[in-house]
Amino acid sequence: MTDSRLDRQLAFVRELDRLKAVLRRTRLMDGSRMENSAEHSWHLASMALLLHEHAAPGLDLLRTLRMLLVHDVVEIEAGDTFCYDPAALEGKDERERLAAERIFALLPGDQARELRDAWDEFEAGSSVEARFAVALDRLQPLLLNLANQGGTWVEHGVGVPEVRARMEPIRGGAPGLWPLVERLLRDAVELGYLTSARN
Amino acid sequence: MTDSRLDRQLAFVRELDRLKAVLRRTRLMDGSRMENSAEHSWHLASMALLLHEHAAPGLDLLRTLRMLLVHDVVEIEAGDTFCYDPAALEGKDERERLAAERIFALLPGDQARELRDAWDEFEAGSSVEARFAVALDRLQPLLLNLANQGGTWVEHGVGVPEVRARMEPIRGGAPGLWPLVERLLRDAVELGYLTSARN
Repeated sequence: MTDSRLDRQLAFVRELDRLKAVLRRTRLMDGSRMENSAEHSWHLASMALLLHEHAAPGLDLLRTLRMLLVHDVVEIEAGDTFCYDPAALEGKDERERLAAERIFALLPGDQARELRDAWDEFEAGSSVEARFAVALDRLQPLLLNLANQGGTWVEHGVGVPEVRARMEPIRGGAPGLWPLVERLLRDAVELGYLTSARN
Repeated sequence: MTDSRLDRQLAFVRELDRLKAVLRRTRLMDGSRMENSAEHSWHLASMALLLHEHAAPGLDLLRTLRMLLVHDVVEIEAGDTFCYDPAALEGKDERERLAAERIFALLPGDQARELRDAWDEFEAGSSVEARFAVALDRLQPLLLNLANQGGTWVEHGVGVPEVRARMEPIRGGAPGLWPLVERLLRDAVELGYLTSARN
């Protein structure tokens, strides 16, 4: 092992620190501040540990954790894109692809490829693991918004159809969690956190 | 599977959100604010993904990740204890044990036992995985303090002997990283971030 291999690993470890400064639109459950993408990634990985029995059969938990730990690192450069803003979504894929090129290239070649493959797999939803990871990435903000009397839904006037469409990947990615999602969406409407159409 | 099993899993997932509000003594690398224990846990798990080749032989990466993801959850109740404050360290073990009793009990029995075992193993350093996890938990604040011109060492007048003693578990837990630690400590002294004795 050469020093330069470890130096490259450390350069990436230092780069990761910047994800703690990337703010999402969702607030913590206590409403005190916006969530950042690093702590969000930790929450999702911990959820995978606890909820993987609700995934489709054949899930490899280690591959899922690897994917969840790195799924947002491109935001270090590309920023978080609000999922209910069509204008912001424009160009998101290209911005994130360019960010992935630069950030993963900090690593030694074998690790750059491994993490880039994991990120591509997550983005494409091309495996049981990726579809479960995406499902958790949709469920978690639902829990946070519910704890915040509707949170970003209310602030941005998002309606049931948009949220339901956003949650749709949970149906196949985490079949055991779909009845819960249906229940939570009904609760959100009953509590007045979600309206039947965009304002 | 009963609803109550999923309800208990969700109760724990919601509880986890509170770890994002537990502040550590260390600043982010850009110095902008204190790090919280949730994003710290994400950073460590990501480091394990990248650096596990530097551990002692025979490491199970999945077990390491499980341990790192949950190693700080007791701080939700017990708070973060500053490692260079002997008075604060008094009673830490008992505070954290009581917190573990309550927090893990939110989960279904099998998962409560699994995570409690992982936490006990980390605390005791009783496996290759635990010793590697502890090593990363020591290395990460070293990197953050170096990026902050000495950070908490300077603020609290901590000297080389204390930091060296604190880093000692890296020697056995991540043998491949020990030469790096020696080098970083020399750098810290040369740069004036660490003095040879407590002020």
